[in-house]
Amino acid sequence: MTERVLTGITTTGTPHLGNYVGAIRPAIAASRAPGVESFFFLADYHALIKCDDPARIERSRLEIAATWLAAGLDTERVTFYRQSDIPEIPELTWLLTCVTSKGQMNRAHAYKAATDANDAAGEEQDAGVTMGLYCYPILMAADILLFNAHRVPVGRDQVQHIEMARDIGQRFNHLFGQGRELFVLPQAEIEESVATLPGLDGRKMSKSYDNTIPLFEGGARGLKDAVARIVTDSRLPGEPKDPEQSHLVTIHDAFADAEQRAAFRADLIAGLGWGDAKQRTVALIEAHVGPMRERYAELTAHPERIEAVLQEGARKARAVATPFLAELRQAVGLRPMVAVPQPKAAASDAGKPALPLFKQYRESDGRFYFKLTAHDGTVLLQSQGLAEGREAGSWVKRLKTEGAAALADAPVTFGEGVDRARVEAALAALVAAQE
Amino acid sequence: MTERVLTGITTTGTPHLGNYVGAIRPAIAASRAPGVESFFFLADYHALIKCDDPARIERSRLEIAATWLAAGLDTERVTFYRQSDIPEIPELTWLLTCVTSKGQMNRAHAYKAATDANDAAGEEQDAGVTMGLYCYPILMAADILLFNAHRVPVGRDQVQHIEMARDIGQRFNHLFGQGRELFVLPQAEIEESVATLPGLDGRKMSKSYDNTIPLFEGGARGLKDAVARIVTDSRLPGEPKDPEQSHLVTIHDAFADAEQRAAFRADLIAGLGWGDAKQRTVALIEAHVGPMRERYAELTAHPERIEAVLQEGARKARAVATPFLAELRQAVGLRPMVAVPQPKAAASDAGKPALPLFKQYRESDGRFYFKLTAHDGTVLLQSQGLAEGREAGSWVKRLKTEGAAALADAPVTFGEGVDRARVEAALAALVAAQE
Repeated sequence: MTERVLTGITTTGTPHLGNYVGAIRPAIAASRAPGVESFFFLADYHALIKCDDPARIERSRLEIAATWLAAGLDTERVTFYRQSDIPEIPELTWLLTCVTSKGQMNRAHAYKAATDANDAAGEEQDAGVTMGLYCYPILMAADILLFNAHRVPVGRDQVQHIEMARDIGQRFNHLFGQGRELFVLPQAEIEESVATLPGLDGRKMSKSYDNTIPLFEGGARGLKDAVARIVTDSRLPGEPKDPEQSHLVTIHDAFADAEQRAAFRADLIAGLGWGDAKQRTVALIEAHVGPMRERYAELTAHPERIEAVLQEGARKARAVATPFLAELRQAVGLRPMVAVPQPKAAASDAGKPALPLFKQYRESDGRFYFKLTAHDGTVLLQSQGLAEGREAGSWVKRLKTEGAAALADAPVTFGEGVDRARVEAALAALVAAQE
Repeated sequence: MTERVLTGITTTGTPHLGNYVGAIRPAIAASRAPGVESFFFLADYHALIKCDDPARIERSRLEIAATWLAAGLDTERVTFYRQSDIPEIPELTWLLTCVTSKGQMNRAHAYKAATDANDAAGEEQDAGVTMGLYCYPILMAADILLFNAHRVPVGRDQVQHIEMARDIGQRFNHLFGQGRELFVLPQAEIEESVATLPGLDGRKMSKSYDNTIPLFEGGARGLKDAVARIVTDSRLPGEPKDPEQSHLVTIHDAFADAEQRAAFRADLIAGLGWGDAKQRTVALIEAHVGPMRERYAELTAHPERIEAVLQEGARKARAVATPFLAELRQAVGLRPMVAVPQPKAAASDAGKPALPLFKQYRESDGRFYFKLTAHDGTVLLQSQGLAEGREAGSWVKRLKTEGAAALADAPVTFGEGVDRARVEAALAALVAAQE
């Protein structure tokens, strides 16, 4: 069975080498696995939550899309689209909003972190909290459920949101599925094993530590300069080095094959100088990243090419989303108004016997009644008095469409001298006339 | 100036005579006023908040649409659509969600009513509260702002929501308008003067008092039976009646012209019996409602005709909504990626003087620099060292596109022996080459 894997890509910031090794490269590799159908999307509706700088939104989308394409995302194989090109996503967000309990959103980590910070600062709980921050787990549920993703690779901090998507999906299935599973319930796939690349100082490479090695920025020179600043111990050329204690080795290894790794270690133990070691590392990374950087430059110089790729991705994504949303709309009752079959011509037509007739009326007791009369005037069924006209109408409708099956519950008695067989035959004739 | 008036129609329940006199008839009359452009929509996304019964959602939409059409809504003149046919509405809802503060939603009356009830019952504050109930003021803001409505007729209880729509619209204008008013800020139009029809017992006609007169249900007979049950005093035929004390008179007057009203009063004072008075009232209402009831029956028997009307309405509404949403997307940064003008061919081409050249680089101090060099090698501008490569890139971009105008703020000094005029000419040449 083909499994569908959905990966959301944050469209803020500029990717560094750690993002490439830790997220981009493994995701692209995973998308090449057999039996996997991959959806990748640029989460630009999410980006709006934290960013009200339109130029930055625009630039980030371009740079991140170019990065993934340059890094080898095969858009023939995967579906790569912008969230904001899929109008079905915000529409589904509203449908899901209606079935999500507020209590559940109150427990979302991102929101709780904000209120905790406000509490600590003596502020009002919701100070500075936007509805975007508060509601985004529902948007995320729509991202996932709309494509019936089986697996969603996420960091530990996002596991709760996948659980929320499962809950919301389950509730929707329960309310509207009529026994059918409208939504696949997604599994979080926690990226435990992912290589975390150390930064210049040996801590995890991260913008917040200001210890990153750029992926494309600054060109080959920028890469070389950054690697030059990787912290090493003070052993001189000729002195044996301990490869296991050096994060330069970890960075090197992220781009090396087994043979290169072994040789690098052996040379360091034999006294390779840190300067030379860094040069080898730069050469290794550059061999990998250099061609990507060229593709990146070419792409960012031609945004219209990226646009075309994303438009094609949106087309593929909507080929899934549009019919599925139509099905979900049908399920909740947002249905096109279609012609009802008009009752077939009665009496005189084509020698057929006239159909029995339902009649609804109200008595002086103020209650609503209906009865079923045969074409010869015999009363076949007589209802009890009902409080609401609609109730009578709805029973008539059920009897007309379900026939004798509805008799068990219906508030009716048979007419005088009328047996069950005659009533059943009359109802069957009505059902047949409806069809 | 044409004013745009937007009216949302709840798609739950079955309209009674009080709804017709108090809401439907005056709204339709108002839509015929000159200088008014009316938008009417069936608020079916809102209906989903309170109703998870798809059959009821479906039936209510049909009945309510048929009622308004039967009552004379002129869809040539007004734009009449289903909310759920306008995908721009949920999309705008998300854009607005991102700029709405949670604190504001906490103060919404409908939400507070729910939490107060929970408090009183000793429940958790948010027990049973859905995100639909909590978020719907944002959906309502989108309903209104998407069509730049000037006026929104609402009941007193909805005034707060219009104020919220104003706040949200104002905030969006402020953040993304760049001095332009993207959204018209709507005015609530409070329906003070609207006739409130009394019910059978003299209290306001309302489903919750079980004192309604049906509009179409039950046919002419249903109308007659209901009017028969209107409470009057016990004066006998021949005794003079006090018309000002009788709510039968109020109901009569809602369908009478001045002459008929005067005659009815005079006859009651002269001793007209209540039974006869009721018959006259029934005849008056039936003359008005009867033809509508026929149209209603015809429409509900042909849902596909209503569908066609609503599809045409959606087309008209989207002719407004689609281009406007594109503008809003542009404003927040969700922009198509377009081709950037490629720099014009330099040097040897067509005898033109070679363009001056920007160069970005990094020094051993780790900082980023750029300089502008004339085609003869003269350094025209030299930047200071900058912490970020992007900063340098962004200055180069500004200088290339804005020319000398960007000089005032740029972190640059002129090259040795270079005067301002030469720099300005060089930048002007670059700007021209971009165009």
